[in-house]
Parts: sequence; structure tokens; C-alpha cells
Amino acid sequence: RINGDRLWAALMELAQIGATAKGGVKRLALTDLDKQGRDLVVGWGKAAGMSVTVDQIGNVFMRRDGTNNALPPVMTGSHIDTQPTGGKFDGNYGVLAGLEVVRTLNDLKIKTEAPIEVAFWTNEEGSRFVPVMMGSGVFCGAFSLETAYAANDTEGKTVGEELERIGYKGTQVPGDHPIGAYFETHIEQGPVLEDADKVIGVVPAVMGLSWYDCVVSGMEAHAGPTPMGLRKDALQVSTKIMQEVVAIANRYPPYGRGTVGMVQVFPNSRNVIPGEVKFSIDLRNVNDELLNTMHEEMLAFIDKTRGETGLKISIERVSYYPPCPFHPECVDAVRNATAELGYSTMDVVSGAGHDAIYAARLAPAGMIFVPCKDGISHNEIEDAKSEHLEAGCNVLLHAMLERARI
Amino acid sequence: RINGDRLWAALMELAQIGATAKGGVKRLALTDLDKQGRDLVVGWGKAAGMSVTVDQIGNVFMRRDGTNNALPPVMTGSHIDTQPTGGKFDGNYGVLAGLEVVRTLNDLKIKTEAPIEVAFWTNEEGSRFVPVMMGSGVFCGAFSLETAYAANDTEGKTVGEELERIGYKGTQVPGDHPIGAYFETHIEQGPVLEDADKVIGVVPAVMGLSWYDCVVSGMEAHAGPTPMGLRKDALQVSTKIMQEVVAIANRYPPYGRGTVGMVQVFPNSRNVIPGEVKFSIDLRNVNDELLNTMHEEMLAFIDKTRGETGLKISIERVSYYPPCPFHPECVDAVRNATAELGYSTMDVVSGAGHDAIYAARLAPAGMIFVPCKDGISHNEIEDAKSEHLEAGCNVLLHAMLERARI
Ligand SMILES: NC(=O)NCCC(=O)O
Ligand SMILES: NC(=O)NCCC(=O)O
Repeated sequence: RINGDRLWAALMELAQIGATAKGGVKRLALTDLDKQGRDLVVGWGKAAGMSVTVDQIGNVFMRRDGTNNALPPVMTGSHIDTQPTGGKFDGNYGVLAGLEVVRTLNDLKIKTEAPIEVAFWTNEEGSRFVPVMMGSGVFCGAFSLETAYAANDTEGKTVGEELERIGYKGTQVPGDHPIGAYFETHIEQGPVLEDADKVIGVVPAVMGLSWYDCVVSGMEAHAGPTPMGLRKDALQVSTKIMQEVVAIANRYPPYGRGTVGMVQVFPNSRNVIPGEVKFSIDLRNVNDELLNTMHEEMLAFIDKTRGETGLKISIERVSYYPPCPFHPECVDAVRNATAELGYSTMDVVSGAGHDAIYAARLAPAGMIFVPCKDGISHNEIEDAKSEHLEAGCNVLLHAMLERARI
Repeated sequence: RINGDRLWAALMELAQIGATAKGGVKRLALTDLDKQGRDLVVGWGKAAGMSVTVDQIGNVFMRRDGTNNALPPVMTGSHIDTQPTGGKFDGNYGVLAGLEVVRTLNDLKIKTEAPIEVAFWTNEEGSRFVPVMMGSGVFCGAFSLETAYAANDTEGKTVGEELERIGYKGTQVPGDHPIGAYFETHIEQGPVLEDADKVIGVVPAVMGLSWYDCVVSGMEAHAGPTPMGLRKDALQVSTKIMQEVVAIANRYPPYGRGTVGMVQVFPNSRNVIPGEVKFSIDLRNVNDELLNTMHEEMLAFIDKTRGETGLKISIERVSYYPPCPFHPECVDAVRNATAELGYSTMDVVSGAGHDAIYAARLAPAGMIFVPCKDGISHNEIEDAKSEHLEAGCNVLLHAMLERARI
């Protein structure tokens, strides 16, 4: 069994870097704070006897040798970047649970046949740079290194420059790194486990996701003298589309999701009719056919709105991944470990994307969820119970040992 | 008659300060650029033989003595601050038309009985600091100097600090400055004159205005795992109110106006359900009773929405002025001057607020409108014809001379 207090202490120490007044963490990908967080975790990994490699997109792999190093490693991991108003657990838990597994194996002097690796992937959150889950996406070939390097933030800084600047542009070619099996522990980021009062979520699948940038262009004009009938108000037209995003999701329960999270209005002055509005659209479903139907309905609505209003509306898909069912053997390894340890459990479909879905393209993969308070994440008040985090880490230990063999 | 080429040249020179790539001007109130603009105009005023005083809110008065300086001056003026995406004419025309009147009187060696003054008022636009029409508002006592000093921009800088910084915090007590009559020339900022193919708009009245800040507070949460039915999406609730603002205005044609121009979403990340949305509301009408009805309907809708959604919604009125009918004598002076000069003309109610409505609380006042291209202002492509600007300035000259007497 792992040491729950040590795991908690590591989480709290990492959460100091970028700590916010409201008790959350703001440590955006490839910022100075991200570098500090990376340095801390790498230091811990080395102190636990692991060797470290960094690839060209900044993914970090910390390795504990096995007795047969010709075998591909059993890997676990997640990310340590956060949302602008993020919490202490999202991602960080998956990385530090991996570290805790290694520390426990060291304490107990357990040798595994296959090597064990703890990874953290670059820019999982996608808040500063799109696409989301960038490091694992490049690793598995979902998109190219060049695409990722060229991604820029709102200030125009690119991933390539920022990786270089913080000293995490490694030399290993992404993907040139075998994986035997991949497990990821994560807070659920939804309310299902808590509502059902279960400790461990076995994750059969992750919903697919489509992200879009929508731009509505009207004509900016003075709010006073411009008669209502002569306006080309980009915001009013945008609100129709924003409402439709939610309406579409509501037509496909229980796994349809639709969200507009980001909005920019130009020129954003109170007495100017908005001339241009940019906003994001996030559509999800666990069924790829339904996700595609949602996509088509949205495009059709935008065509209709364009026709009705005469305004210019552009829509561009900026990220997409299909739903990802996990490998039956890994799902079973998690299920067996949970049963062995005697934790209450249920299956939970993941609404959030995780690096595990990209790892799953290269190796059998599975995930372990633990509850978080009120199902809230991507929020500074994100919270989780130490005993749940400990339980998830114990399941991880057992599942990894099943695959790596003692 | 005034010199239209000289007026145009002055407008183009002032428009260099803060010139934008798209041919507009961005010279926000109390910025370094505003200081440069002020210095240029003050320099021109002095070169035309005028004496200059600055009051505590940064209003600038440039005076040409009359033969009887015991008489209160006949004043004209406007503002030189612009919108973030503003044009070359809004405000600037009114100030430089005044300067051109004085230059013409100098050329023709005309002495007036009453002194002539050209004023420019601080922060008319209200984009950087609320309330709008701040300088003239403090001058006439619509709100206090302390309120104005405390107003801050999105970075927290206050009017008091910024006035000091740019060297335009004068010593004269606002309002401690008699006015005999006030005229203001301005581009129409709407499409009415152009549509009717008239050169001069006689302005019988200005619409009243109510400005609000609305804040909708929900709960930020992850866009993937949070089921649609459990969300408290502040943006979706906001879109209903945004649409109602326009619906209310449409219920009170032809002079009802409703606009949402400014929106901020928190935390503004594409996979976070918005936890808070702040936006502005701008309601106008030329009839105060109808404006009040619009106000009541908006509050009732917000109450209803609060009840239906359970979200917290706060609404605060941040600016208000009632409709302002101008003084019959000044309206007639404009009408007579236009007839004398033989320009085509019609009456145009002003949808935009102007410093003239605050001056009108202290002295008889009137306004002169000229067409602007496509009725567009508060936009970098704002444009006006030199011959129309010249015509408006000639009307100003004649109307001022009628009041100031030769
Ligand atoms: N787990 C997580 O927050 N992933 C970010 C991608 C997503 O929005 O699902
Ligand atoms: N003329 C002008 O743009 N005034 C600003 C106040 C308003 O929005 O009407």
C-alpha cells in the first residue's frame, strides 16, 4: 500500500507554485511557473532514483528500471499545467500518484520485471495553446510537431519559443519511446462518483470532442443614433449561436455536451454596437455518430443564421478527437485491483479528455477516477479527499504491478 | 465665411495623434496621446490670440475677448478624446470648428461685443472612464468632482491620477465660469441626414440615456464531465438578457435604442463553463417616460430570469441623463443661420449624448449636425465630407455672431 500522507504532502507542495488567493493554482503551460513545477517534479523523480528523458515537445519521462529492461515500460502519468483558474489536483494527482507508486516500490524494495515510467505531458489543458493534450497528441502522431510548435497564445508567443525559453525542448523524437501499458489516475471532474457515494471510478471510455472558433462579423456603429432596424450587431447574432450550442447538446442526452467558454467582443465599448465577436464552441459525445450529428446540426444552424441575418459568420474546427474506448485488459486490471483492495466502485464515462486517450493509440490503456468535491474542477475551489486520492493510488499500484509483474 | 481648407487641415493634423492603421484614431481620455492632442489644440488657440484656463476636471477654455468683457461669453466646443476604434471627426470637429470661427474672426478683424470661447471637455466618450461626458457633467453639477476623480479604468488607474500625470488638473472650480450661450457642431453619427440628402441638421433634442453594469454569477465547472442539467452557466443566462435589451428597444420605435457593447467572461477558457459574465447595457429614448418604461421592463426581466434560473444577477445603473430639449432661441439661431446661408436642412433628434446637454443646464444651448458617411461613427472608417464640415462651421459662425453681436 502506498503512503497517503506523503502523496498529499507532495500535492500540496507542488500547488504552492502558482497558488492563487482563492486556494487554486494558475500555472499555465510553458510559463515560468510551469518551468518551476517541472523542475520540482523532475528533482523528486531523480531523488527517487529515476532517470529522466525529455522529448522535442517537452514531454518528460522518468524511468525506474526493471529486471528485464528489454520489455517496454508500464507507464503512468498525466500533466502538471493548469487552467487559468485551476485547482491543485487536475493532472497533478496523476503525476504525483505515479511518483508515489515508485517511492512505495523503493520503500518495499520491490523489483518489477518491466520498467516503470512516470510521464508528464506538455500542455494538456489547452487554455494557453490549442490543440489541447498537445504533448501526448504529438507523441502518438495525432498532429505534427510543426503544428504544435506553431501554436501561439493570445500575445503571439509560440509553443516552440516558449519550450526553448523554459529549457524543456528535449532531443528525443516524440513517440520514439515504447510503452507496454498506460494507466492514468485522475479526479473525476464531474459529480457522478460523489452522487453515488463510490470511491473508485473504472473508466470504460472517454467522450469524443470537437472544438471550434466562431467569428461573427457585423458593423460597429454608435449605440445612440443608429436605428434598431439598420444595425449589424455581431453580438446579438452570436447569442443565437451560443444558445443553439446548448440546445444541440440537450437534444442528445445523457452524453451530449455543449459549451461556449470563451468570448471576445470588438471593440468592447459600451456605446458601440459590436462589430465583431469571436467565441469558442465545445461539443462532446461518447458516441462518434452522435458527435458528428451534433457537428452537422451546428453547421446547419450557422448556415441558417448567416442566411437570416446577412452577417458574415466563419467557423473553424480547431481540435477533434473521437470517443476513446479503453483496452479491455487495462480496464479489467483496474477493476481487479479495486476488487482486491475492497473499494466501492462503479463505471464512469469520462467527459474530460485525458492524455490517456492518445497513449491508448500506441498501447493498451486504462484510467482510474476518484471523486472530487461537488464534481467541480477547472475552478480554484476544486477539492478532493486525501483518503480517496490514496485509494486511487493504491489501485494504480496494483494495476501497474499486475502488468509489470514482480 | 470660414476657410474650409484650413478647418480640414487642422482636423487631419490632429488625427495624426493616435492614428490607427485602418485610418481611424485611438486617443483615449487622459492617455499620453490625449495630452499630445490637448497640447496641440492649446498651442493653436494661443497662436490665434486666445487666453487659456483649465479647470479641476481638465476642461479647457480658450477665450477671445469681446468689446464688453463683462458679458458672459458665447461658447462653442466639444471633445478631443476618442473611442478605442474611433474616427477623425467625432468631437474633434466641434472643437476645431470653434477654432476656425476664431481664426476667421481674426482674419476679418471682427470684434464681437460678448467674448467668444472655444472649450474642450474631458472624457466625453466614457470608454475608458465612466460616467460618460464627464467634464461637462462635473461642470454643470450633474455629479461631483470626487465621483469623477475616483472613476477608474480596467487597469485601476483613476481620473484624478491620470489628470495629474498628463498635467491637465487645473485650478479653476468647475462651473465657476459663466456662459451666455452654447453651440456645438458635431457629425450626426447616424444615417438620417445622408438618407434625406440634407447638409445641416437642426437638433431639437437629445435622447436620454441609461447605462448599466450587469453581472451574472453561476458556477465555473469543466465543460466535459458536467451534465447539461447540473450547470450554472453564467453566459447562457446572460445571452437571454442581452437579447431582451434589444427586444425592449424594438418595442418602442422609432426612438427606442438598446445595446450591449461590452462583455467580459470569466475565466474565459474554452473548456470551462463560464462562472461569471459582466456586460454593459445601454438604453435610450427621446421620451423620458418611455425611457423609464424601458428601464422598468429590463429590471422586471432580470427579476424573472433570476427566479427562473436561480443564478445571482446584479444590475447597477452607472450613468443616466434625461432627454434634453434644446433652448428655442438657440435652435432658432441655428435655423436662421442655415436659412441665411441657403443650406438644405432638416430636424434631427440626436441619439448620441453630447457635452451640449450638460451645458444646456447652465445656459441656452443648441447643436448643429452635419452628415457622416453611411451614418457610421465610433468606428475607424468614420468619414465626413469637407464641404459639409465647412457648411456646419459657417452655420456655427453665423449663429454665434447672432448671439455675441458685432
Ligand atoms: N482533463 C482535462 O481537463 N482535460 C482537458 C481537455 C478537456 O477539456 O477535456
Ligand atoms: N457623441 C458621443 O459619442 N457621445 C458619447 C455618449 C454617447 O454614447 O452618446
